[in-house]
Amino acid sequence: MSVLTRYLSVQDLVDLVRRKGLSACLAGVAARIEAEFLRWEQFEKSARLAFHSADGVVELMPIADDRTFTFKYVNGHPKNTAAGLPTVMAFGLLADVATGTPRLLSELTITTAIRTAAMSALAAKKLARPDSRIMALIGNGAQSEFQALAFRDLVGIDTLHLFDVDPRATAKLIANLAGSGLQLRVFSSTAEAVKAVDIITTVTADKALATIITPEMVEPGMHINGVGGDCPGKTELHRGVLEGAKVFVEFEPQSRVEGDIQQMPADFAVTEFWRVLAGQAEGRSSAAQVTVFDSVGFALEDFAALSFLHEVATELNLGSLLDLVPQNDDPKNLFGVLGGHSGGLRRAA
Amino acid sequence: MSVLTRYLSVQDLVDLVRRKGLSACLAGVAARIEAEFLRWEQFEKSARLAFHSADGVVELMPIADDRTFTFKYVNGHPKNTAAGLPTVMAFGLLADVATGTPRLLSELTITTAIRTAAMSALAAKKLARPDSRIMALIGNGAQSEFQALAFRDLVGIDTLHLFDVDPRATAKLIANLAGSGLQLRVFSSTAEAVKAVDIITTVTADKALATIITPEMVEPGMHINGVGGDCPGKTELHRGVLEGAKVFVEFEPQSRVEGDIQQMPADFAVTEFWRVLAGQAEGRSSAAQVTVFDSVGFALEDFAALSFLHEVATELNLGSLLDLVPQNDDPKNLFGVLGGHSGGLRRAA
Repeated sequence: MSVLTRYLSVQDLVDLVRRKGLSACLAGVAARIEAEFLRWEQFEKSARLAFHSADGVVELMPIADDRTFTFKYVNGHPKNTAAGLPTVMAFGLLADVATGTPRLLSELTITTAIRTAAMSALAAKKLARPDSRIMALIGNGAQSEFQALAFRDLVGIDTLHLFDVDPRATAKLIANLAGSGLQLRVFSSTAEAVKAVDIITTVTADKALATIITPEMVEPGMHINGVGGDCPGKTELHRGVLEGAKVFVEFEPQSRVEGDIQQMPADFAVTEFWRVLAGQAEGRSSAAQVTVFDSVGFALEDFAALSFLHEVATELNLGSLLDLVPQNDDPKNLFGVLGGHSGGLRRAA
Repeated sequence: MSVLTRYLSVQDLVDLVRRKGLSACLAGVAARIEAEFLRWEQFEKSARLAFHSADGVVELMPIADDRTFTFKYVNGHPKNTAAGLPTVMAFGLLADVATGTPRLLSELTITTAIRTAAMSALAAKKLARPDSRIMALIGNGAQSEFQALAFRDLVGIDTLHLFDVDPRATAKLIANLAGSGLQLRVFSSTAEAVKAVDIITTVTADKALATIITPEMVEPGMHINGVGGDCPGKTELHRGVLEGAKVFVEFEPQSRVEGDIQQMPADFAVTEFWRVLAGQAEGRSSAAQVTVFDSVGFALEDFAALSFLHEVATELNLGSLLDLVPQNDDPKNLFGVLGGHSGGLRRAA
């Protein structure tokens, strides 16, 4: 049995997205997330393991069903951009549960942007008003284009209201979306940008208890896709916004610690989104209700993304093969991998 | 700033061990473990995250100080050898805490054998009688040569008593140790093999509540290095052996769940080994006392091993460089990595 591990580098992932098309990847990952969320109870789930430091956080996000184990390594360091480094860097692994063999090692920085946007759009498709066409995009950084295109393709958004504290970020977003068919309108504050929109997406990066969205900005029937409030001490929504809305989360035990609902008492009512997909819970109750998807990013979304990548990479034979683990004729003879007598037995001088 | 990640494949690790010599690697890793254990309280520690299934376990073992984060992925599947796969396969990562940048991705299957043997020998050096020369090695599988050579180099063992339920494993061990200078004696049972030895090392692989060592086998003054009892439901020592000994562990919260002491009440006295190194606790109290190192393998040992590999690989410029995370001029322009207009904006057909 081969124990070579397929490896998708950043360049391999770029090639994969170019060959499939970004829209197909967004749709493919969204479909995969939906399928995995529908069998929610088959997974061994845990909140991610987070290591916090002064400037950021490093996290491991594992999950498994009875056939496949995946995990993601991901950091979050808002000040990284000043050093020319991405705020978020990620990679992940997919392995066989039956033997522990690592099957796929992949970059997940670009992939995380794709899966986060796919998750957001999937949630909005179920929770936002079906006639939603205008979305405010607050925070025009690394994830914004992916959110824009996922909402265009999967939700039917045709107009974006843009705001970022850094005008260069907005200029970059506009340049990148030229030719997307999306109407782009730039505003000089969050309050102006969110006026009369159907959906508000917040993807800001500050590791702070921020209040990007306050209650007076929220209009009846809006759907709020809160993406950037995703670790302890990092929020985007004023608690009054949460109090006035029906709030949906991914995995409640994790969201209570990391989500915008970290501001709320432990008995504040939330609904796990998979239950809406599975028909076990109601989504939006009325056209006038405000819905919030308090997204933090859950390991099952990465499981879905890694499964998608593994399937596509195998089909297109992309990437390379790594000898990450030994392959020897006699597995009990690990020492033999060292080449026996060639120096292995020499005592230190 | 470069965000390329150094990669050490299995072949790179073999090259590294050949160039440094296995003895130097065992000694180097042992020295590194000792140094890290001496600053025990500077680490953010947690028991490993384990995903159990019918045939085995998949684990993540993270740890960090204020500068460096490491984790290991490792499986344990006793039946794997029947499928031509190693029982244990592992790899790991070393990253900068300040930015989250992954610095080293390395095979850790061979390295785990090295660090486990280095840890065992370091513990025995402090806990066994100083005049120890004869060691019983029960279980002659993948880890046995590494244990043998580490005890030869670091403890002064000159004679091994061998037993394995699989005679081919013992034959392989003997062939691999030819030329090592160690006297090798083969026995047909554990009871015979452990008679009149100074140290008993158990490295068996069964995922079972086994009793490899029973109280009547234990003689005054022996040191028992219990390596194979390392996950829930997997033990090697009869509880009477533990009751009659002074027991040392790596990280108590993890060992209570995974070690041979999982059989004992929660208040059964154990000593964390780092306290002996630091002079905060006594090791062996008398020449006649029986000491047990109930080893399960702790993340800090992998931290030490990865730090050693990173240093040596950088010095010798071994391995290759992976683009595991994106490197772009404008980190906020992750979308730009996809190559802008070349298909990125096309809608799905």
